[in-house]
Amino acid sequence: MIARTDACPADETGVLRLGNATGLTCRECGNTVPLGPFYACDQCFGPLEVGYDFPRLTRADIEAGPKNIWRYAALLPVPQDIASRPTTEPGYTRLIRADGLAAELGMRRLWIKDDSGNPTHSFKDRVVAVALAAATEMGFKVLACPSTGNLANAVAAAAARAGIRSVVMVPANLEEQKILTTAVYGGTFVTVDGNYDDVNRLASELAGEHEDWAFVNVNVRPYYAEGSKTLGFEIAEQLGWRLPDQIVVPVASGAQLVKIDKGFTELTELGLVDGKPWKVFGAQASGCAPVSDAFAKGWDVVRPVKPDTIAKSLAIGNPADGPYVLDVVRRTGGAVADVSDAEVVDSMRLLARSQGVFGETAGGVTVGVLRKLLADGQLDPDAETVIINSGDGLKTLDAVASSVTVPAAIKPTIEEFEQFHG
Amino acid sequence: MIARTDACPADETGVLRLGNATGLTCRECGNTVPLGPFYACDQCFGPLEVGYDFPRLTRADIEAGPKNIWRYAALLPVPQDIASRPTTEPGYTRLIRADGLAAELGMRRLWIKDDSGNPTHSFKDRVVAVALAAATEMGFKVLACPSTGNLANAVAAAAARAGIRSVVMVPANLEEQKILTTAVYGGTFVTVDGNYDDVNRLASELAGEHEDWAFVNVNVRPYYAEGSKTLGFEIAEQLGWRLPDQIVVPVASGAQLVKIDKGFTELTELGLVDGKPWKVFGAQASGCAPVSDAFAKGWDVVRPVKPDTIAKSLAIGNPADGPYVLDVVRRTGGAVADVSDAEVVDSMRLLARSQGVFGETAGGVTVGVLRKLLADGQLDPDAETVIINSGDGLKTLDAVASSVTVPAAIKPTIEEFEQFHG
Repeated sequence: MIARTDACPADETGVLRLGNATGLTCRECGNTVPLGPFYACDQCFGPLEVGYDFPRLTRADIEAGPKNIWRYAALLPVPQDIASRPTTEPGYTRLIRADGLAAELGMRRLWIKDDSGNPTHSFKDRVVAVALAAATEMGFKVLACPSTGNLANAVAAAAARAGIRSVVMVPANLEEQKILTTAVYGGTFVTVDGNYDDVNRLASELAGEHEDWAFVNVNVRPYYAEGSKTLGFEIAEQLGWRLPDQIVVPVASGAQLVKIDKGFTELTELGLVDGKPWKVFGAQASGCAPVSDAFAKGWDVVRPVKPDTIAKSLAIGNPADGPYVLDVVRRTGGAVADVSDAEVVDSMRLLARSQGVFGETAGGVTVGVLRKLLADGQLDPDAETVIINSGDGLKTLDAVASSVTVPAAIKPTIEEFEQFHG
Repeated sequence: MIARTDACPADETGVLRLGNATGLTCRECGNTVPLGPFYACDQCFGPLEVGYDFPRLTRADIEAGPKNIWRYAALLPVPQDIASRPTTEPGYTRLIRADGLAAELGMRRLWIKDDSGNPTHSFKDRVVAVALAAATEMGFKVLACPSTGNLANAVAAAAARAGIRSVVMVPANLEEQKILTTAVYGGTFVTVDGNYDDVNRLASELAGEHEDWAFVNVNVRPYYAEGSKTLGFEIAEQLGWRLPDQIVVPVASGAQLVKIDKGFTELTELGLVDGKPWKVFGAQASGCAPVSDAFAKGWDVVRPVKPDTIAKSLAIGNPADGPYVLDVVRRTGGAVADVSDAEVVDSMRLLARSQGVFGETAGGVTVGVLRKLLADGQLDPDAETVIINSGDGLKTLDAVASSVTVPAAIKPTIEEFEQFHG
């Protein structure tokens, strides 16, 4: 395993328990290792994934749980008493029926899973909560990450809530909004003179130096990524324990898409939903579309790109789960597509105007790709469809600032109002 | 009644039904009128309040409802099928146990009701959803409001979601953040050359001119205000169907505080919680503290002030429910207090640091007053206490911008990191 076991006191005594998780399995060669702070296979360097031995579980068991992701604790690599510990309690965000948007797009049944309702207003609260729970059990003392924004907010907030130290590293040229909303939580905050790739590399080096630091998206990534399954669980439960026909998911590292699909599969295997086919679609911005590009060209590998898009939360040029996204999309009969920054902004405004949901740029990417895939016939307008809004427009205000026009001020009189109102 | 009945087609036919609501009663003289678009008593000009004939209701009935305010539809003036209509689905926000903050303040059991998780990130989504539901039944065609920010966001989003027109009016000098986050929803957006009082006066005049416009906080205010009861309902349910000993609530118009108390009373009368005493405390910023001032001086009336505080969402100099706040607070053995802007900022940072909750300035006011009332012995540190965070720090970033220090950037090397990290 590529990690030192001395970082993991629980593992030393041989009693590390993370709910129903049984070990880590390599996604490439199938080699299995015990639970611990490992993230790459010691046989082939492939990424590790959490495996489980699930108990019999009923819908009622889940419905009796708290109204957050811990209702699915039995399906996550976390201690079973996690709901009683100080976490940010993310999840169970609203799934709203989007008849207004559906009508504009000529669709029959469309839903929006709106993850901007999470504690720091992005889906990152889910994955960080699971990473923190697992990391604490493994004896880590510090929660850390490299980030361009949403993850920084989520890590700093979750650590403050749990009363442990955080170390968050971001590129120094980040927008002031995202810097303030991280620094306010009072952890160690490091701005780095470089781009996200530089920060990410530094984080990987530091993970090797500081044995008791859990970098959520580096050395505890297998646990972290499992958090995104809860998006799939919630969608199914909120639809009345049913799977949709189609789902459109934004693709950054690609883990969210892959884990939603895994969530659907687990629910089916557990008999919590009826088995049926579903199609998974991935959405990227054209300024950072390595997975979309690979899909279009029929490749099995993803060629890294240098990102240049306003959708900064999706701007990962070398997505770790890119090949797995291609697998899922091809297996289910879906697709990956991308849209321009202009279409992203236009789609953010369409979503706000038609549904009252102000999503971040990533939400605009998803709606834009939804339109594109409908237009070229790859998405069925008559099939029940769910789209993910993974973050909040409040954090990416600059994207719409130039296109939303604000009228000139009027004097506070009925006459001026009526003239304005015409 | 001060309102024209010809604005209300449903009322003309005599069949207006809003769930279990039975009529409107004057809070001053007790005069009762039928349900309709009325807000002031035709006998004494006192404010009207919704009355009900509640059915027998069990905890299980409520728990079987949706995970939003409509689980309490039977206790609100809304159609009973409201959950199946296109609303923003606000509410059921997290109630988190705040052990970290409690420890810092020497308290035993403290909870935060965090309403920043609502669709547009403030408690206004609750009141607007109820106002819109009632207004639609009364035949109004447009949802409107004067606002300084949070209400504007909530009205514009709720109207977009429901597919009806909105007219939102704000002072022209509002921060760009709040302007963009309203204008993006695509309703009619009016900026007014004047302060909030000017905008408010214009709204009252327009409510008389446009018969089919529902100004949520003017001509449908009795329904709107009922939405805040859901904060009280949720707190009790989330505590396991129990009432807290003490609650601290920010005071703008004062309606939120009064309605939380009403919510506790209704739950007790319905037998949904065991009867017990509770104390209600109000929190204001010293730059706009007319209710705190009246409380300190033992007055029954509230003398209007000209607001000057960074807590803009609480900056109502002539609070409509001020006298009722005094009633509730004195009846329950609570108090009203106020804190300076510097204490507001310090308390916002304390809340973020100790709990991972980044509240807006109003949240800072509430935490600041909590500290103050503990320090002077008016609040019992050993009694179970709930505080309300009514909005989101993302919308009031300027308040913390000057006090949160961001370190200088480092080069992306382990050496520079270790030197920085020291």
